[in-house]
Parts: sequence; C-alpha cells; structure tokens
Amino acid sequence: MSPRVLHLSMLCAALLLSPAFAADPPPPPTTQELLDASQAADWRTPDPANLLYIDLEAGRVVVELAPRFAPEHVANIRTLARQRFWDGQTIYRSHDNFVVQFGANVEDAAAGPPLGDARAHLPAEFERASAGLAFHRLPDPDGWAPEVGLVDGMPAARDPAGGLAWMAHCYGVLGAGRGMAADSSNGTELYVVIGQSPRQLDRNITQVGRVLQGMELLSALPRGSGPLGFYEDKAQATPIRSIRLASEVAQAERTALEVLRTDTPLFDAVVESRRNRRDTWYLHPAGHIDLCNVPVPVRTLPPR
Amino acid sequence: MSPRVLHLSMLCAALLLSPAFAADPPPPPTTQELLDASQAADWRTPDPANLLYIDLEAGRVVVELAPRFAPEHVANIRTLARQRFWDGQTIYRSHDNFVVQFGANVEDAAAGPPLGDARAHLPAEFERASAGLAFHRLPDPDGWAPEVGLVDGMPAARDPAGGLAWMAHCYGVLGAGRGMAADSSNGTELYVVIGQSPRQLDRNITQVGRVLQGMELLSALPRGSGPLGFYEDKAQATPIRSIRLASEVAQAERTALEVLRTDTPLFDAVVESRRNRRDTWYLHPAGHIDLCNVPVPVRTLPPR
Repeated sequence: MSPRVLHLSMLCAALLLSPAFAADPPPPPTTQELLDASQAADWRTPDPANLLYIDLEAGRVVVELAPRFAPEHVANIRTLARQRFWDGQTIYRSHDNFVVQFGANVEDAAAGPPLGDARAHLPAEFERASAGLAFHRLPDPDGWAPEVGLVDGMPAARDPAGGLAWMAHCYGVLGAGRGMAADSSNGTELYVVIGQSPRQLDRNITQVGRVLQGMELLSALPRGSGPLGFYEDKAQATPIRSIRLASEVAQAERTALEVLRTDTPLFDAVVESRRNRRDTWYLHPAGHIDLCNVPVPVRTLPPR
Repeated sequence: MSPRVLHLSMLCAALLLSPAFAADPPPPPTTQELLDASQAADWRTPDPANLLYIDLEAGRVVVELAPRFAPEHVANIRTLARQRFWDGQTIYRSHDNFVVQFGANVEDAAAGPPLGDARAHLPAEFERASAGLAFHRLPDPDGWAPEVGLVDGMPAARDPAGGLAWMAHCYGVLGAGRGMAADSSNGTELYVVIGQSPRQLDRNITQVGRVLQGMELLSALPRGSGPLGFYEDKAQATPIRSIRLASEVAQAERTALEVLRTDTPLFDAVVESRRNRRDTWYLHPAGHIDLCNVPVPVRTLPPR
C-alpha cells in the first residue's frame, strides 16, 4: 500500500464518518503517531549472527551486518569477531564530517593481530546483482543513482539498466577500509560514517553493515588533529573493550532490540510522514526526502 | 568558465602540444592540485562585521553571517554580540545527527539576559526574492529544490518560477531557533547543523550564517541524553566564554582567514573535481555532487 493509497483511504473514512461531507479530512499521521500505532508484525528481530557488539568504556554500539551485500566480508568479520581480533585495539581516527575508523591497518597487516582462521584476501564487494534482492524503492529521485531504497533496513541504490545494486554511504553505515587496490579490504579495518553522507564512496569500497544503536558513542568522539582526522597523540584513541557477535554473547548480556521493517505499508507511511512533515511546527512540507534522511527506527525491548 | 570548458581547453592543449594526436589528455586536476595552483584573487577575506567568534574553553568557532538572506536577524545578532548577550551562557543541546543549540530560549525570553538594544520581535526570514542575488548555480539536480548553488559561500536554493531563494540546511549552517510561530525567532537562540543535512527545515526557519572554522568543537560535543538531545545533567552543558563580532575584537586577537570565492572558474573546477573524483584511490567517479557535499575551502593566514 502506497502512502497515497493510505491517504485516500483516510479521506474516504473521513467522508463516510463525518456528519458534514464538507469536513476537512484529518491530517495525515506524524511519524510518532504511526510508530505508536505499529503492530508487532511491523518490527523484526535481527539475527544475532548478524549483530556485532562494539563494547567501549562508554557503552555499546550495535551494528547489523549486511551479508546480502558483502557475504565474503561478513563471513570474515564473523570469524574475526569469534577470535576477538579487535579486543584491546582502538578507534584511532575521527575525521570531522566524515568517518571514525578502527581495527587493523590493511596496508600494514603485519602490525595487527594474527588473522587466525580469517582470510587475508577477499574479493571487492562494491556492488552485486540486483536480481534476487528485495529492494524497497523510495518514491523520490536521487542524484547519485538511478534508484534508491531500503533492503532490510540497509540504505541501498540500484541501476536497473546495469542490473546492479549496492549499499549507499549514509550516516551510520559501516564499511571495510581498503588501500589502493580494489580488493585490499578484508574486514579487519573498519569505519563508520559520522557526517554528511559521502555518497561519492558508493561503488568504491565495500560496505558491510549499519549502526542500529549507540551512534553517539562514535559520532561524538573528539576529532583527530592529524591529517585525515588521525590522532596525533595516541593517548586520544578510544580503547575497544571487545567486538563480538551477539550470537556469541550470553543471552543475559545481549541488547534486546527490534528494527522497523522497511518493506511494509507502515514503513511507506513513515517515509511519507518525513517527506511531508505534518508536525505542527512545520509550515512548509518539503514533498521530498533523500535516502540518507530516511529514519529506520529501532526500539529497545525490556530485558527478557 | 564551466568545468566542461576547462576540460575542453585542456584537451585542446594536449592535442596541440602532444607529439602524437592519439595521446590521452592529462587527467583533470584533483581538488588539492587546484587549490595549490590558486591565485590570491580566488580567495576573499570576509568582512569582520560579518564574522562571529564563538569562544569556548576548547577554542574558537568562526561563523560567517549571511545578511543577504537574513538582514534583520543578522542586524539583531550584531547588536546582541556587541552587548555580549551570550557570554557565560552554554551550549545546552547536542542532538546526534541533527544540531547543537545554545543561547536563550525563545519560548521563555524572561529566563534569558535582557535584550538591551536588540529587538524582541523580528519578521521571519525563511526566504527572499531571488532577484538581485548573485546565485552561482551548481550543475546537478537536487531533490529538495528546483535549483541549488552558492551565494558567497552560503549553500542556497532557488525557485525561478516563484522568484524566491533561501539558504539550505547543510552541515555547519547556523540557524535562529524559533517556537511555534513563524516569526518567533529573534537571533537570541541559535543552532548549528552537525549531521546529515536536514533539508526538511529549509523554508521553515531563518538561517543566519555558516561555520567557517572550528566545527569540530561543536560536532564532537557529547550528545545529550534527554529528549531532542538536551542535557539532562546541566553540568554537561558547554560554557560559552564569549560570542563577539570580529570587528569588535582587537586585531591581534582576530583569526586571519580567507574563504575560497564560489563565483569563479576555479570554484567550478573544484566542484568538478568533487563530482568526479580523480584521486587515484577512486575507481568509480560519481558524476554528481549534492549541494551539501560541496566543500567551500577556508585557509588560515599567518598572524599579521
């Protein structure tokens, strides 16, 4: 059901129920009203094998991995997390309006921890065939790609002519750092987007997931004063207590959360509520939304 | 001169100078190469009466005001700065992926310092006539507005049919907070965009300037844990030592900087160097840039 159909049905309901046919239809619901009226089926529980917990002294960042876009990288990241590859490492780069970066240095692998069962070399996974992908297209045009939309909550783009799809660099996206060679990333070096969406990176680097919770623990880190936001003083780097898969963490220690499904009529209505803000504060609804402005709500559940 | 003309002239030069007509043209210059080759006339020195210094314990944020878009608000902000209206106040809101906010609360003016010679009530300045505005249009389409471009370094949009122009909510833009009424802002309450460009605010609120330097002092502030990013613990708020106009500050204390002009062939070439990244790392040039991804370089000069 498109937002337009939703509005039409509301208009019909207003006409049928109203004592006067001339009555104005009720205003379309706001995002909050839609979420308040959501049903259990509008939400999904991410697979714990796809959730990465980045535990810092200040708290936990929860990332959902994107095996549909980067199966080889995600498999390697799972192996690395099981081996606790990143524990005791640091977030050593905080580049204002761009990214924070952590983990190994793909251009100096010898300086990092041993890879163990993980693979040193992976193919680039910049894009994939669009066939077989449940791409939920957004209604508005995008300057960077022929089509944009969501795939299970991941911001994505699609080129129907070329039959390709790829993840889009929006706020909170997790990517796998690479050197000069296209296939030089292996998931040991990771970054998260903390500023205006650097969409110029799309199709130039492998993206592996998206932060669901705890973004503020990354985005508010002090910026590095060195070139590209690297810390000149290593003491400024933020220690990583551990990076683990939720599936490897005891139930009692897991973060119970749900993500709004992005393939439902409710999600379409949420998008429409952001395309044309009806909150009373807004005087000029935009009639548009960019991919990277679309919220994908996450809710925390009480501990089981 | 458009980027296309630049490339054509470079191609002609290559053909004329090359021993073999089949030789490839040299690659277009990167952003850094363009800036390295810039001339003094490519830069401008902002008017000190349009520069606001926000001095925090951690350093100085330099803002350029936008009297072309919000003359009444800018005049009031100048008056308030002269009266040191904000000195000793705090940055009391840090909303992840949205804004930091400081100054008075326009909905509770009695709680703030006296206005003195400043005006309590101003007209909304959401947009202005596009006639008479030196709007330097960008080559790419935008989903939020019919046309986008720069006006003396300020990100802006234009509707030729309606004859209107307005500032666009990009990273680092300074806006004047308002309550429910369109004309409830007066420049006492201010915010700066610290995340993905919230363009849905365009034409809904008065924008008054843009941060030129020191963004990282605002964008990396710890996020508030209360609703909308307000600090629940007031002790988390960041003290403001002073907010002054550069023109009111002794020469020796001023920050000497220049801003790249945005109405020149060099700027067009910079935009093109970002539309199609030719840095060797990039494998897939985007062929597009969004308004809020366009850099407006600022350089610091040695103290006089």
